[in-house]
Amino acid sequence: MSRWQPDARGRLEQAALELYTERGFDRTTVAEIADRAGLTERTFFRHFADKREVLFGGQDALTELLTTHIAQAPESVSPIDAVGRALQATGEMLEGRREHARRRQAVIDANPGLQERELIKLASLAAAMAAALRRRGVPASAATLTAETGVAVFKVAYSRWLGASRRKDLTRVIGDSLDELKALTASA
Amino acid sequence: MSRWQPDARGRLEQAALELYTERGFDRTTVAEIADRAGLTERTFFRHFADKREVLFGGQDALTELLTTHIAQAPESVSPIDAVGRALQATGEMLEGRREHARRRQAVIDANPGLQERELIKLASLAAAMAAALRRRGVPASAATLTAETGVAVFKVAYSRWLGASRRKDLTRVIGDSLDELKALTASA
Repeated sequence: MSRWQPDARGRLEQAALELYTERGFDRTTVAEIADRAGLTERTFFRHFADKREVLFGGQDALTELLTTHIAQAPESVSPIDAVGRALQATGEMLEGRREHARRRQAVIDANPGLQERELIKLASLAAAMAAALRRRGVPASAATLTAETGVAVFKVAYSRWLGASRRKDLTRVIGDSLDELKALTASA
Repeated sequence: MSRWQPDARGRLEQAALELYTERGFDRTTVAEIADRAGLTERTFFRHFADKREVLFGGQDALTELLTTHIAQAPESVSPIDAVGRALQATGEMLEGRREHARRRQAVIDANPGLQERELIKLASLAAAMAAALRRRGVPASAATLTAETGVAVFKVAYSRWLGASRRKDLTRVIGDSLDELKALTASA
């Protein structure tokens, strides 16, 4: 086994992002990605179903992380705070990946088809979190409302984190955004 | 002018929904819709750009309604309540259309491409509401957070309204859902 093999996935991701940034997502082929990474197309397809998956491959891990954290939150934790903690855990996962995340987002923002994919991904995260809340005994409608609100908080926090002029801690940005939401929805 | 002309749009909508329900969205053609409505394809295209537009044609009117209500809310009204009132105004627009809305939703739920279109529609409503809030002087990040949360409330309320076993007032369901969100996010 070549000493590079273990990081094939990372090299493919890196090469794909470079190419998507340089020439656009639509004009990049899998052959070019593999070539840039110094790997074969066959290796590419061992790691990704298609070139879109390079951008959205973390979905399963993210869903798993969110639902596990919601399941494991102590009973005394309110539904919105269970969701908040789960979202903050994703912050730890993404920490140190801001430059990568920024370039990835620029590629998505430039392509309507990828934006649709992103929205679907967020909708399915909301559905998974709502299911995890229902398993905690939260009534269905409150579970959906809480999960959808959590996704709204995450979207805003993620975008703030990406756009911040200096390095910020995503976990903290998510916590701050949730606090801000609580203040915004506090009855006068 | 035929005495039917004034309602051509409504007849096309009705015919399209019937056909989408009977045979599926993908397997329905514009020619069939026009035929069922007793109109020509040319008339169809005077009212709708394509067969998807029959389901999403109300987007501009909805955006206009939401942003106008946000703009006109008294200064003393908080951002989340300005959004809440705007969303409630859409409830008035949809009142009496529940059966139509239910059938429309069933068509969308059965078709991933239409679901994507629905998510994009909601994302663009959130962006329009955030812009309307910024014009009221709400800081950008609070505006986005409030608008995204408003869309989350609307999604949940709309789905509750469609699914309720007996007729409910959408305006009230939206108000109740917003109140529930406030309770869910109230700090302990």
